[in-house]
Amino acid sequence: MREFDVVAFDADDTLWHSEDGFRAAEERFVRLLTPLAPKGIDVAEALTAMERANLAVYGYGVKAFGLSMIEAAIAVGQDRVPSAVFTEIIDVTRDLLLAPVRLLADVAEVLERVSGHYRLVLITKGDLIHQTRKVRTSGLDHHFHHVEIVLEKDRDTYRQVLDRLAVTPDRFCMIGNSIRSDIQPVLEEGGHAVHVPYPYLWELEKVDVLPTGGRFTELGSLKELPAWLGITAH
Amino acid sequence: MREFDVVAFDADDTLWHSEDGFRAAEERFVRLLTPLAPKGIDVAEALTAMERANLAVYGYGVKAFGLSMIEAAIAVGQDRVPSAVFTEIIDVTRDLLLAPVRLLADVAEVLERVSGHYRLVLITKGDLIHQTRKVRTSGLDHHFHHVEIVLEKDRDTYRQVLDRLAVTPDRFCMIGNSIRSDIQPVLEEGGHAVHVPYPYLWELEKVDVLPTGGRFTELGSLKELPAWLGITAH
Repeated sequence: MREFDVVAFDADDTLWHSEDGFRAAEERFVRLLTPLAPKGIDVAEALTAMERANLAVYGYGVKAFGLSMIEAAIAVGQDRVPSAVFTEIIDVTRDLLLAPVRLLADVAEVLERVSGHYRLVLITKGDLIHQTRKVRTSGLDHHFHHVEIVLEKDRDTYRQVLDRLAVTPDRFCMIGNSIRSDIQPVLEEGGHAVHVPYPYLWELEKVDVLPTGGRFTELGSLKELPAWLGITAH
Repeated sequence: MREFDVVAFDADDTLWHSEDGFRAAEERFVRLLTPLAPKGIDVAEALTAMERANLAVYGYGVKAFGLSMIEAAIAVGQDRVPSAVFTEIIDVTRDLLLAPVRLLADVAEVLERVSGHYRLVLITKGDLIHQTRKVRTSGLDHHFHHVEIVLEKDRDTYRQVLDRLAVTPDRFCMIGNSIRSDIQPVLEEGGHAVHVPYPYLWELEKVDVLPTGGRFTELGSLKELPAWLGITAH
């Protein structure tokens, strides 16, 4: 068994599907706005640029995405955007907020096995209300000693969370799908990190280099985690 | 000196102005939409009703308010709402998110004095990014051992915060302007609570009864807090 005091999990695209819902919403937005945009405008690119520009003001999450869609609609459609388009953007936003949690394969079994041997923590960024709703309705809440919904997953945040949990970085292992948010800052703080990729990655999470070193591991799926942790099948 | 291990403060309308900004935004919204609404529609009431209906989905904070304004505009103006109105609603929302913090009178001096004798904590609900921005740019951040941005200020939340701080309710005192969020749940958990009213109170925070009992205090302003806590002037 590996000697960790805390095994921490990312939530979106690590425990349950998320990015595929945003992709579908984005496609709906593009279909909606393309007929209203002047020729030569790339609607999808305009939306991503708006999200990027708004990140420092709106932060992460669905409500930020909804407001960015409204702004991108005005930007690409100008005064030709009818009320009905804004109604549909609100519908897209609400659908994302209220969509039932869709767990990734093997998540429930893996957490059940791992929680018998380690203290589990959930660390996620985004909307307070949306992330809380997903954690509570997932049926997985009871596996976690602690749930942290944070503004940004950077070195400062991980340092604060580790302090709060009274755990040293070398006894901490983070598991997630985003190199930028789940892996790099944890490795930089001296912790261990396990990357489990998800088929889609949000444009704003992309990084150029893959980490290396003894404290970094990449697994093909969460199913491999118990064996990697040294939990033997019973 | 009163024997508290933690003195906790609410933020909006306790340390800095907030509700007056929402009121001004609401007035701007009413002026904007009234010409578009059919005769006999109460635009302000429609907006408050929309906020109330959306609370469980959007939660608290400015982004939630912005989305509710968009929806209320569509509801009262139907297909007569021009693009420019949505642009202005976005402007109102961004203005609220980016407005500099306006401290209430005596706040800086009071925190300076009280922090010399007690462990201070900030407990606020709302948008993660907006509340964090306000705390950090207020210049008051260093007075607080701990900042909690929570989804809802109910008994469950206070119980979790007290657990996390390892403090018993009888050694905990909460100071804030909202009976519903800062006072009632704390008293119900066995803690102490000090109500410092603010001239405006959001419709959704209103309660009918004022608490009583030995663990409840009402002060006319934050300036009276050090003396109430038993901190003598030096």
